[in-house]
Amino acid sequence: MKHMIFGESHGPAIGVTLMGVPSGVELDMEEIAFEMSRRAPGKSPLSTARKEADIPEILSGMFEGHTTGTPLTAIIHNTNQHSKDYSKTKDLARPGHADYTGFMRYQGNNDYRGGGHFSGRLTAPLVFAGAVAKQVLAAEGIRVGAHIRQVSTIEDLPFENDVYPLSGDTFTLVAQKEFPVLDDERGAAMRQAILEAKERLDSVGGLIECAVLGLPAGIGSPDFGLNAEGIFAQHLFAVPAVKGVGFGVGFGCATMRGSEMNDAFYMKGWDVQTRTNYNGGINGGITNGMPLTFTAAIRPTPSIAREQDTINMDTMQNAKISIVGRHDPCIVHRAVPVIEAAAALATCELLGI
Amino acid sequence: MKHMIFGESHGPAIGVTLMGVPSGVELDMEEIAFEMSRRAPGKSPLSTARKEADIPEILSGMFEGHTTGTPLTAIIHNTNQHSKDYSKTKDLARPGHADYTGFMRYQGNNDYRGGGHFSGRLTAPLVFAGAVAKQVLAAEGIRVGAHIRQVSTIEDLPFENDVYPLSGDTFTLVAQKEFPVLDDERGAAMRQAILEAKERLDSVGGLIECAVLGLPAGIGSPDFGLNAEGIFAQHLFAVPAVKGVGFGVGFGCATMRGSEMNDAFYMKGWDVQTRTNYNGGINGGITNGMPLTFTAAIRPTPSIAREQDTINMDTMQNAKISIVGRHDPCIVHRAVPVIEAAAALATCELLGI
Amino acid sequence: MKHMIFGESHGPAIGVTLMGVPSGVELDMEEIAFEMSRRAPGKSPLSTARKEADIPEILSGMFEGHTTGTPLTAIIHNTNQHSKDYSKTKDLARPGHADYTGFMRYQGNNDYRGGGHFSGRLTAPLVFAGAVAKQVLAAEGIRVGAHIRQVSTIEDLPFENDVYPLSGDTFTLVAQKEFPVLDDERGAAMRQAILEAKERLDSVGGLIECAVLGLPAGIGSPDFGLNAEGIFAQHLFAVPAVKGVGFGVGFGCATMRGSEMNDAFYMKGWDVQTRTNYNGGINGGITNGMPLTFTAAIRPTPSIAREQDTINMDTMQNAKISIVGRHDPCIVHRAVPVIEAAAALATCELLGI
Amino acid sequence: MKHMIFGESHGPAIGVTLMGVPSGVELDMEEIAFEMSRRAPGKSPLSTARKEADIPEILSGMFEGHTTGTPLTAIIHNTNQHSKDYSKTKDLARPGHADYTGFMRYQGNNDYRGGGHFSGRLTAPLVFAGAVAKQVLAAEGIRVGAHIRQVSTIEDLPFENDVYPLSGDTFTLVAQKEFPVLDDERGAAMRQAILEAKERLDSVGGLIECAVLGLPAGIGSPDFGLNAEGIFAQHLFAVPAVKGVGFGVGFGCATMRGSEMNDAFYMKGWDVQTRTNYNGGINGGITNGMPLTFTAAIRPTPSIAREQDTINMDTMQNAKISIVGRHDPCIVHRAVPVIEAAAALATCELLGI
Repeated sequence: MKHMIFGESHGPAIGVTLMGVPSGVELDMEEIAFEMSRRAPGKSPLSTARKEADIPEILSGMFEGHTTGTPLTAIIHNTNQHSKDYSKTKDLARPGHADYTGFMRYQGNNDYRGGGHFSGRLTAPLVFAGAVAKQVLAAEGIRVGAHIRQVSTIEDLPFENDVYPLSGDTFTLVAQKEFPVLDDERGAAMRQAILEAKERLDSVGGLIECAVLGLPAGIGSPDFGLNAEGIFAQHLFAVPAVKGVGFGVGFGCATMRGSEMNDAFYMKGWDVQTRTNYNGGINGGITNGMPLTFTAAIRPTPSIAREQDTINMDTMQNAKISIVGRHDPCIVHRAVPVIEAAAALATCELLGI
Repeated sequence: MKHMIFGESHGPAIGVTLMGVPSGVELDMEEIAFEMSRRAPGKSPLSTARKEADIPEILSGMFEGHTTGTPLTAIIHNTNQHSKDYSKTKDLARPGHADYTGFMRYQGNNDYRGGGHFSGRLTAPLVFAGAVAKQVLAAEGIRVGAHIRQVSTIEDLPFENDVYPLSGDTFTLVAQKEFPVLDDERGAAMRQAILEAKERLDSVGGLIECAVLGLPAGIGSPDFGLNAEGIFAQHLFAVPAVKGVGFGVGFGCATMRGSEMNDAFYMKGWDVQTRTNYNGGINGGITNGMPLTFTAAIRPTPSIAREQDTINMDTMQNAKISIVGRHDPCIVHRAVPVIEAAAALATCELLGI
Repeated sequence: MKHMIFGESHGPAIGVTLMGVPSGVELDMEEIAFEMSRRAPGKSPLSTARKEADIPEILSGMFEGHTTGTPLTAIIHNTNQHSKDYSKTKDLARPGHADYTGFMRYQGNNDYRGGGHFSGRLTAPLVFAGAVAKQVLAAEGIRVGAHIRQVSTIEDLPFENDVYPLSGDTFTLVAQKEFPVLDDERGAAMRQAILEAKERLDSVGGLIECAVLGLPAGIGSPDFGLNAEGIFAQHLFAVPAVKGVGFGVGFGCATMRGSEMNDAFYMKGWDVQTRTNYNGGINGGITNGMPLTFTAAIRPTPSIAREQDTINMDTMQNAKISIVGRHDPCIVHRAVPVIEAAAALATCELLGI
Repeated sequence: MKHMIFGESHGPAIGVTLMGVPSGVELDMEEIAFEMSRRAPGKSPLSTARKEADIPEILSGMFEGHTTGTPLTAIIHNTNQHSKDYSKTKDLARPGHADYTGFMRYQGNNDYRGGGHFSGRLTAPLVFAGAVAKQVLAAEGIRVGAHIRQVSTIEDLPFENDVYPLSGDTFTLVAQKEFPVLDDERGAAMRQAILEAKERLDSVGGLIECAVLGLPAGIGSPDFGLNAEGIFAQHLFAVPAVKGVGFGVGFGCATMRGSEMNDAFYMKGWDVQTRTNYNGGINGGITNGMPLTFTAAIRPTPSIAREQDTINMDTMQNAKISIVGRHDPCIVHRAVPVIEAAAALATCELLGI
């Protein structure tokens, strides 16, 4: 399964072309709509007030409710654009955004309105593609789930905890929450931190923990381009705002000893298991049958209302910018289904689907 | 430039085939030998006592001292193997190693001796390939350098500090050190921590910080498979023992505010610069002309002398394993040139070389 | 530049996603419409009477008349479908068509109406993609042109002849003809042969000769995946109905002697030229600066009105089929712009565009 | 299975790196040696008198007689080089060869001795790779075979004939012949034609017909990069001297009518078959279960002893060249196992092996 995501925030439509979708998958459109709604903005004061219908129209690759196996293209028409918002600041490179790098990369030809092709809105077709991938994986008994692991300095419980088992049921439970954490009390504290940042005309970042359940042992390879971590990382870093990815304990391995980090194998009945899962279900680039787990670091939203120093790309002089309009003071909660989508696509690639 | 690394620790030879090397590059073989020596074991009590000659023999793609532009294959003959060391424990899956996953992946057909294709020894051809890439990049004014950022809980100075500028000269200085840190005093503390772990029959992990200097702005793309972070991550996670990768502040972004993390642009004469570089020289998957910086997390060496719980893969029963032989209590210092090599190959891919 | 073509003949839309289009290309939409019209049916008794509007709608990758450099998706809505025509014969595998192979490949899930994803209609987005590629190439001084070389047993002049020089002007001249041959008298004989086949409820095949002008010497590589012939062939065989591809004299080389076929080099002023071009501008997989020429063999249209033997894919029994509806007795003339489009995309790939 | 072929005719070694070989294949080294011997020169007056030992040394990916599943590299050391033969003519571009295009491509840095990386000798590692692929395919019940279909104007019987069935036994029979034709009388006439060309200091070309037996229906796809013809063509055009490829009747389709070329389906017991196989077992880029057949056109050997016009690449002036040394007046018979090897690799790619 290969995908190409296309579109600009203020162009006619955004969408995705998926090649290699298995044929005969009965797509559950309600499930897809549910996944889309998890990412959609406008649900709470934590997110931008923009309304996005975001109902994908499937143009190809579907017939009588099933995937045909031929390339599947879905598009989302852009309807609620405020293009005028952006014209005034078109030459001002928003710090933390891709205005300057996009200008250099595309020699000034890219669509600057609303971030153009760099817009977080482009994660909508990614969530769609991920929703298709999830349904393909579900048929193989594989589930993907994620939750907010941290916002600013406030941590949620990890997936491995004494209250909630790491299971598909827990994934379902979390996915239905408007603010997808395991521990709602900690979630309330996170929301508070986000609102405080908003009041200060600022934004906050966080961490998302994700797990893939049901992967058999022996998938992947140690080689470049084929190893499990590399495949996942390439999908995850294609998600805007992801600045770090770690498998299992990730960066925590730096301060661990070998005797701690070596997940001991043991027989659980006829199954090979490990007593701990600090390696995130991967040894030598290959799955070991334990949950594949990783954490992704999400930077604070670059769009903040405060005045910032920058340059004018037309005059090439120093300038000040104040970003007006409606922006999320935190995107971590909305990024949870996006990370799941990227993980679902990565899992398909890993499995050769 | 594409590469395929091949070989097993105890097979006839290991090596690499590099396609797409630019023609006419006058390879500095001493420089290559120097890079190989940085990775080579046996230099100090911190590393395994095995001696590896590791002089790569170039079989193709070189003519009269220059690269021809046709595929370049270099091999390193395996000479100093102790195959008997491994036969006794062949059915015991070493925890933290790929014995079990390799067994599952290759259905018991892989060469188990010394880790086979999973051996850290396979990083030698990677360093060779990286050394070629570095010379290609040097012609473009691009330098790649790294240092140990942390071992266990002991941190080195970051690349951005008040003592050493982030420059090619600093790279040269660090590369010549047997223990590649910026601050030798902190390095001494790290060595002490490594020796302590060794005495406890244990091992320690750490972090490596790496930077690429001289990259112009506008390289990369936001799209899957083409974005700077994704390309680097795929190369880095192909290095054994890497469990996390973060760009710029990486996971540190979780606790930062947008107003901090948004690297403000300003004009430095005619050059566009950012006042800080928390985003690691990348916005929206595209370079912004600042140093491309990242940190990789290196897990503690899985080979430890302590007895560990595991399974016997033949009998499928619980078992105990004691790994004998000579092993590194820490591989972070030896991994520094390997991370640089992966970064050099990633830079070539990013640049379309 | 990579492309994915999607859609089914009777689905909502067909289209193409193009990645890697250079930024800043001012797309000449009239030129694109002209290319689309060359392929469009309904112009003469030689072609099907179906009317296809086939005006591509660009959804992304364009801004203010220029390509942005981000993925460009264009779609053509399907409007003039006669889905009922096909339902009766849905289980009958049309000989020469992909009904049976598509059924096996997609396990009965593909859209059978009008050939679905296998429809010749899918060449419309290919022509669009090729039209974009041609405009990109034109900026590099590269032109692509083709003509009918043969229909049934009737041959046109070859591109190398004494009347018309092999030049962009000749390309323009031929492209404007409804029946794209060099010699209209021979063209008239071809048309006659097509009409005779139509009367006999049959169809005819032919050959298309194509040339790429303006390619510099030294492009390509002898290696798998990178050689000029291989790159072109992969693009050409993706065109439905192409069953053979030959470069330069192609299959004619079998009966030539080395002394004939070795195109002798000579200096024409400061330029290296060859006196003949039997190798089609390619030696060792690399361009030599002469026109890159090839011929593609186009099979007779499989849709014929005669009754044919076949199987019923539902009952798995022998059956008879009579294909009703409007079909081209020959597609060679309509395939000319399609072959050019594939060649333009191949040229972009060869050049690393 | 991906492969990279490396080496120069007069460098230290030539070889191939194969990634993705299935694990656990018990490689029959005698079979491999037999395949190598089929390609080897020096067997008769029809071929060059050079002796090439060409015993591949496997450096990796093999353990205890089985493939490990990790990258397999095999090399052939170059031993019998006459480098001095080439130095005199180093600046003279041999017509029909890649001297000039290689010079332009690699800016004069490629190894000119004996054709360097362009040498026909590089087909030895390709035959090795193909021999591995054949053994992988044999385990799936798939056989690949080829024969000389034509030399100069003399034709062999086609694979579809009344004397020899198209079967693995016929493949075995032909492969054991020094001059691989079906009809030895026609073969004798071909040999005579080759010897006559040799006497005239000239060379001849020909055609090779190849078939893949045992492929199930439903393999491949209509899409670019995935269709059966495109995959085969890319492998075949990577073989030096191939200038044309046609599937089934190939170029013969130009003069056929639809009513002839539409291979009629029928039930043979429970199997779907076609009465004829003019489409070469492929409809719409997907296999239909019939033998996959194709013909490749092999140009006459460019190395001929006659004096030829050319240029001096150093002085950029017109020049004369007389190629001395030992050269094949025809390579068609030696190319038969090479074409089979390319077809075997293509079949693996098509099957996703």
